[in-house]
Amino acid sequence: MTCIKKNSLPLLALFFVISWTASAQKDYNLWLQYNKISNTQISSEYNAEIKGIVSLGNSETSKIWLNELELGLNAMLGNKVVVKSKLEDDNVIIVGSKSVLTSEIQKLVESDFEKINDEGFIIKSILVKNKKQLLITGKKDVSVLYGVYSFLRWLQMNKSIKNLNITDAPKTTIRILNHWDNLDRTVERGYAGFSLWNWQKLPEFIDQRYVDYARANASIGINGTVLTNVNANALILTPQYLEKVEALANVFRPYGIKVYLTARFSSPIEIGGLKTADPNDAAVANWWKEKAKEIYKKIPDFGGFLVKANSEGQPGPQNYGRDHVEGANMLADAVAPFGGVIMWRAFVYSEHDANDRAKQAYTEFQPYDGKFRDNVIVQVKNGAIDFQPREPFHPLFGAMPKTPLMMEFQITQEYLGFSTHLVYLPRLFQEVLDADTFQKGKGSTVVKVIDGSLNANKITGIAGVSNIGNDLNWTGHPFAQANWYGFGRLAWNPYLDSEVIADEWLRATFSNDENFIKPVKDMMMKSREAVVNYMTPLGLHHIMDTGHHYGPGPWVSNLTRPEWNPVYYHKADKNGIGFDRSKTGTNATAQYAPELQKLFDNLDTCPEKDLLWFHHVAWDYKLKNGQTLWNGMALKYQEGVNQVKEMQDTWNKTEKYVDKERFKEVQMLLEIQYKEAKWWRDACLLYFQQFSGKELPKGVEKPTQTLKYFESLKFPFAPGN
Amino acid sequence: MTCIKKNSLPLLALFFVISWTASAQKDYNLWLQYNKISNTQISSEYNAEIKGIVSLGNSETSKIWLNELELGLNAMLGNKVVVKSKLEDDNVIIVGSKSVLTSEIQKLVESDFEKINDEGFIIKSILVKNKKQLLITGKKDVSVLYGVYSFLRWLQMNKSIKNLNITDAPKTTIRILNHWDNLDRTVERGYAGFSLWNWQKLPEFIDQRYVDYARANASIGINGTVLTNVNANALILTPQYLEKVEALANVFRPYGIKVYLTARFSSPIEIGGLKTADPNDAAVANWWKEKAKEIYKKIPDFGGFLVKANSEGQPGPQNYGRDHVEGANMLADAVAPFGGVIMWRAFVYSEHDANDRAKQAYTEFQPYDGKFRDNVIVQVKNGAIDFQPREPFHPLFGAMPKTPLMMEFQITQEYLGFSTHLVYLPRLFQEVLDADTFQKGKGSTVVKVIDGSLNANKITGIAGVSNIGNDLNWTGHPFAQANWYGFGRLAWNPYLDSEVIADEWLRATFSNDENFIKPVKDMMMKSREAVVNYMTPLGLHHIMDTGHHYGPGPWVSNLTRPEWNPVYYHKADKNGIGFDRSKTGTNATAQYAPELQKLFDNLDTCPEKDLLWFHHVAWDYKLKNGQTLWNGMALKYQEGVNQVKEMQDTWNKTEKYVDKERFKEVQMLLEIQYKEAKWWRDACLLYFQQFSGKELPKGVEKPTQTLKYFESLKFPFAPGN
Repeated sequence: MTCIKKNSLPLLALFFVISWTASAQKDYNLWLQYNKISNTQISSEYNAEIKGIVSLGNSETSKIWLNELELGLNAMLGNKVVVKSKLEDDNVIIVGSKSVLTSEIQKLVESDFEKINDEGFIIKSILVKNKKQLLITGKKDVSVLYGVYSFLRWLQMNKSIKNLNITDAPKTTIRILNHWDNLDRTVERGYAGFSLWNWQKLPEFIDQRYVDYARANASIGINGTVLTNVNANALILTPQYLEKVEALANVFRPYGIKVYLTARFSSPIEIGGLKTADPNDAAVANWWKEKAKEIYKKIPDFGGFLVKANSEGQPGPQNYGRDHVEGANMLADAVAPFGGVIMWRAFVYSEHDANDRAKQAYTEFQPYDGKFRDNVIVQVKNGAIDFQPREPFHPLFGAMPKTPLMMEFQITQEYLGFSTHLVYLPRLFQEVLDADTFQKGKGSTVVKVIDGSLNANKITGIAGVSNIGNDLNWTGHPFAQANWYGFGRLAWNPYLDSEVIADEWLRATFSNDENFIKPVKDMMMKSREAVVNYMTPLGLHHIMDTGHHYGPGPWVSNLTRPEWNPVYYHKADKNGIGFDRSKTGTNATAQYAPELQKLFDNLDTCPEKDLLWFHHVAWDYKLKNGQTLWNGMALKYQEGVNQVKEMQDTWNKTEKYVDKERFKEVQMLLEIQYKEAKWWRDACLLYFQQFSGKELPKGVEKPTQTLKYFESLKFPFAPGN
Repeated sequence: MTCIKKNSLPLLALFFVISWTASAQKDYNLWLQYNKISNTQISSEYNAEIKGIVSLGNSETSKIWLNELELGLNAMLGNKVVVKSKLEDDNVIIVGSKSVLTSEIQKLVESDFEKINDEGFIIKSILVKNKKQLLITGKKDVSVLYGVYSFLRWLQMNKSIKNLNITDAPKTTIRILNHWDNLDRTVERGYAGFSLWNWQKLPEFIDQRYVDYARANASIGINGTVLTNVNANALILTPQYLEKVEALANVFRPYGIKVYLTARFSSPIEIGGLKTADPNDAAVANWWKEKAKEIYKKIPDFGGFLVKANSEGQPGPQNYGRDHVEGANMLADAVAPFGGVIMWRAFVYSEHDANDRAKQAYTEFQPYDGKFRDNVIVQVKNGAIDFQPREPFHPLFGAMPKTPLMMEFQITQEYLGFSTHLVYLPRLFQEVLDADTFQKGKGSTVVKVIDGSLNANKITGIAGVSNIGNDLNWTGHPFAQANWYGFGRLAWNPYLDSEVIADEWLRATFSNDENFIKPVKDMMMKSREAVVNYMTPLGLHHIMDTGHHYGPGPWVSNLTRPEWNPVYYHKADKNGIGFDRSKTGTNATAQYAPELQKLFDNLDTCPEKDLLWFHHVAWDYKLKNGQTLWNGMALKYQEGVNQVKEMQDTWNKTEKYVDKERFKEVQMLLEIQYKEAKWWRDACLLYFQQFSGKELPKGVEKPTQTLKYFESLKFPFAPGN
C-alpha cells in the first residue's frame, strides 16, 4: 500500500503551470472579456429582453457587428442567441444603419437621428407593430458598430436594458493612435515588446493581431492610426512598403479605422531622387502630389500625414529657409484633392535658442494662427515640455483661435515608469482637458479648444502615443490596458469623467463585484498623484535619467544640449530649487491669458502642484501646510512611496476576484513599482540634500543606498530608447 | 416587417473575427494540445485503464507532473481524473521516482532500472497485490517528468495502453537550445519576433512564457538553454544581470533545464577592470574563477559557458598569441570545481586565410584532439560552411576521437526562408546524423560520434540554434514548431526517424485523422528537398543575399571579405559552375576519411546532391538523368517551385481537420513561400544564364522579371540581422 497526499501548489513557478489555457487569453482579450453574468436578476432580465438578433445589411462591417453580438451575448448570457432572418417575435435586437431600416422604424427614431452626427448611434427600445424591440442604428455602418460595442459594454456593466434610449456621438473627428514604430519593429518609447507590424510578412500574411487590434480600437471609438514613428523613415512611402500599408488598411477599414503615415520631409530627396525638399520648389510639391495620388489609388480612404519637422534633428521646411506654414500647406495641397489631412506637430525647440524651452513652441507657432490650409491641424502636446507626470497645460491651447489644434497625449509611459508602474493616465488627461485657458474668459477650458466648440473649428482631434506592442497582453502591464481604453473613451468624449471610465474598464476587464470595484477604482484614481509624488512633486519635471528616461537622474549635467540635462529643469542650488518662469524669470507665464499669468506669477497664488515649474523657491519657503519647502518636498516623496505600498495592500486583497495570472502579474509589477518608488525618493532626496543642506524630516525613511550608488546605475539596454 | 437573411462570412478579415477565443491559444499551445480523443474505442480503453492518479513525492517537479497529468488526461478523456492519496483500486497511474516507491514496486522494475541512465524512465503495467496498475518512474524526479510527458504523448497518438512496457533514456547528456538573443531583445537570425527574455522586468517579473517555455522544452527532453548570443556581451556577467539570470534559472530548475551563458572572452577587461584577457595571465584566470564562484553561488546548477572565440570579430585567446586550447582550458578550470562545462565553438574562419573557408575549422581544430580538459566539449556545426539547405557533414566529425564533439544544428531558418518557408528540418538533421564518416571503418556514422559511442566520450551533446521568439505561436510559422519539437526529440534520441517524429508532432499538434496525417506528413518530408531545389540544388551553397541572407544574391561580389560574397561559393563562369574542393582544387576532400575522399574526388562517384560543393562542373556535363548540368539545374529550380505548389494543394485540402486560424496562417505562408520560390528560381537562373549562355529548357517557366529587377531589390529591415 502506498500512502501519499495530494500536493498543494502555491509556489511561484507552479502558480503558472496550467494557467495559459484560460488566463493568458484573458490578458489578451483586454476589456472585451464578456464574462458570464453572475448576477441572476440581471441575467434573467437580459434573457427575457433578448430573444434574438435581426441584423440588417450585408457589408463587411455588418458581419463584424453580428459576430460581435453573438460572441458577446452567448458568452455573457451563457446560451446561444438566435439570429433571425425576419422580425416576427418581440424582444429582438434590430441592428442596421439608417438606410436599411424600414420607413416605419425610421420614423420612430427620426428626432434621434437629428441629435447625432455621422458617427453617432442610437440604442432605443421601440414598439414595432405593438411588439417591443431594441434598435441599434446610426447613419453609417461603422456608427452601428459603435452602437453595438456600446450596447455590449452596457451589458458588461450589468445595467438594465428594459427601457433604453441612448443617443451618443463622438465629439471629435480624429481619434487617433500615434505609433512610434520603426521599420525594424523597435518601438521608440515602447515598453510592451515590439511593433505589431510585421513588415517582412506583409502584405500576404495577415496576423490575427491586426484584426484584434482593429476590433479593440473600434470598440472604444478610435478611428485612425498612424502606423509609423514621427521620427520618420522615407522608405514607408516606397511602393514596396505601400503595398504592405494597403494590406493593413484593408484589414482596418471595416472597423472604421483609417490609416495614416508619418511623412519624412526629406523624402523627395531620399526616395524621390530630387536634389531638394524645399516646399516652395515646384518639383518637390509635384513629387508629393504624385505620391499622394499613388497612395490614394491603393488606399482610397487614406487619412493623411503626421509630420514632425525641424524638431530634434528631423528635416523640415526651415532647412530651406521656409517656415512651418509653407511646409504644412504644401503637403496639405497634395492630399486635399483626396480628402486627406496634415497633422503638423508643434513640438519644437531649438538647441540654438538659449531661452526657456517651455516657451519655444508658443513663440514659434502662435504667430502662424490662421495661416494654415483648412486641412491642416496642429498637434500640440498636453504640456509645454514633454509628457511629464505633471505639466501645466500647453499655452498654445486657446491661443490660436483660427487654427484647429489637436491634443497629443502620451499613452506609453516614457516618463512615468515604463510598463512596470501602475499609473491610470485618464486622470492626467482629464486634468489637462478641464484646465481653464481663460482665453475667451472664464470657462474657456482646454476641452472646448479640442472639441472645436470654443472657436468653431471644423476638424478636431485627439492623438495618443500608443502603448501597444506585441506583448501577449498588448501593453506590458495589465493596468496599462486601462490607459489605451481610457484614451479612446476620452477621444470619443473628452468630457467624460476619468472615474466613470475606470469603473467601466474594471467591470469589462475583471469583475462587477462591488467589493472589487470600489477599492481598485480608488487605487487607480490615486495612482497618478502617487507617481507625481515619488518622481516629481510640487512642479518638478524632467529629472529622469537621460536618453532612456528610466529612473531618476537629477544629477545629469553633461549632455551637449543644455535642455537635455535635468539640472536645466530643477536648477537646485543653495538658495532653493525650481525654474523661474514668472515675470522675474523667463516670463513664460506671459504666454497664458492675463488671469493665469497673474495667478502663476504670484508665489502665493501659484498652485503648489506647479510651484517649482514656475518659481525658484527657497528651501525654507513655507508651504500652505506649514512645512518648509525642503521638508514638504521630502514628505511628498515619502507619500508617493507610501501610496504605492497602499496600492500593494489594496491589490493583495483582490485575489478572489481576479484570475490567478493577472493577479500575480500585477502583484509582481507593484513590487517593482514599490522598489522603484523608493529608488526615486532616495536618489532625488540625497541629491537635492546637497543643496538644501538639511536633514530629512521625521516620517521620511532613511535611504538604503548612497547617492554615489544611485549615480552609478547604468541601463544601456533600457527598452524604447 | 423586416426581411433579411443571415450573412455568411468568408472574407479575409472576417475569417479572424472571433478566432482568438480558441485558435490563437492553439497556436500558443504547441504540441501540447491534448485534444479530446474522438476515437471512441480508444477513449473507452483509456477510461477503463485510467481510474485515478497516485502521485508520490513532494518536490516542485512532482507538482508539475501531477498538474500536467491532470491537465492532459482531463482534456483528452473529457472528464475529471481522480487524484488519490492511497493505492486502493486497480488501474491507477502511480507516478514517482525510484526512491519513493515501495520496495514491492521497486522489485517489479528492478531490471528495468538497470537499462536506463539517470534521466531515463520506465512506463510499465504492473500487478500490485494482484491489481493491475500503471507505473511511471525513473531515478530522478525529472526522469519521472519525462516519463509523464512520454505517456501523455502516447495518449495523444491514440496508442493502446493496455500492456505498456517502455523504458527509454536520452542518448546524449547535453540537449540544449542556443538562443542568439541580445540584451536589447533583438535576436540574431530570429524570425519569430523578439527575445522572450524581458531583462528590464527581471528578476521580479516572471513572465508566464518563461514557464511555458520550460514546460515545452521538458516535454521533449531538452535539458539546457544558453540564454544569450554567441556574439556575446560581457554585461550578462555583471551582478545586475546575474540576478536576472538567477530568476530564470529558478523557473527552469523544476523542469530539469539548466541555464548556460555565453562568455565574452574579453570580459575581464570590459567588466573586470583588467588590462588583458590573456588566458595565461594569472589575474585573468583568477577573475574567471571568482566569476564562476559568484555565478554558482546564485545558481548552484549553472550549466557552464558557450564560447565563440576568434571568429567573425569576437575576441579570443589568439588576441594574446594563445590558442583555442589555452582559452578553453582556462575557462574549464574556472567552472570545473562546480561541475560546469565549456562548450567551445569550432566555427572559425579567418579573413586572412586565402584558402577554402570550408577547410579552416578542421585545419585549426583537428590538431587539438585530446588536448582539451575533460569538461570541454567542442561544438561543431553540421557542415563546414554555415547552416546551408544542404551541406556534406562537417569533416571534424570522427576526426577528433579523443575529444567530445557536440553537434550544432540551426533550428532558426537563417538560410532557409526565415519563418515564412515551411521546411521540416529533422529530415536535414537526420541526413547529417546518418552520414558515415568511415573514420573507424564503415558504419562510423556521425550519430555515433555525437552519442559518444564511436569513441567512448563521456560528455555528449546536441545544440540547436533556437527559432523561438515572442510571436504568439513562438516560432513564426506553425510548422516551425515541428523543428523545435523535432530537434528536441533527436537530441534525446538521435537515432529516431524523422518521419516518425513528424507523425508524432502532427498528431499532438493537429489531428489523428489518417486522411490528414498521411498527406501532410508526406508534405513535411518532401519540404526540405523542395527548399534545396528552389534555392541551392546540386550542391550550390551560400548564394543568399548577403547580410540578412533573405532571398537570392548570387551576384553579390562587393563585400570586403572574399568569403562573404556568393560569387566565392558558386564560381560560375563560361566554363561551368561549382567550387572545386577535390584534389585538383582546394583538396578539402582530404579532410574526410580515405573512402569518402575517393568518392567525393571522382566526378562520377560524387553524390549529385553535393556535386557543385566539390566540383567545378561544365555547363554541358551530363547528369545521371541524361540532362546537361545547365538543363538539370534549371529543372531542379523548377521542381522546387512545383513542390511548393504541391504543398499548397496538399494544405488546401486539410481545412476540415485544422482550426480556422492555423489553417489560414499556413495557407498565407505557403503563398509567400510559393512567391519566393519563384523569385529564387528566376533570379538564380537569369544570373547563371549569363555564364551558361543557354536557353531555359522546356518545362521551366519563363521569368516574370528581369535580372536587373531582382538585383535591385533591397531589404534594409529584414529581420534577424
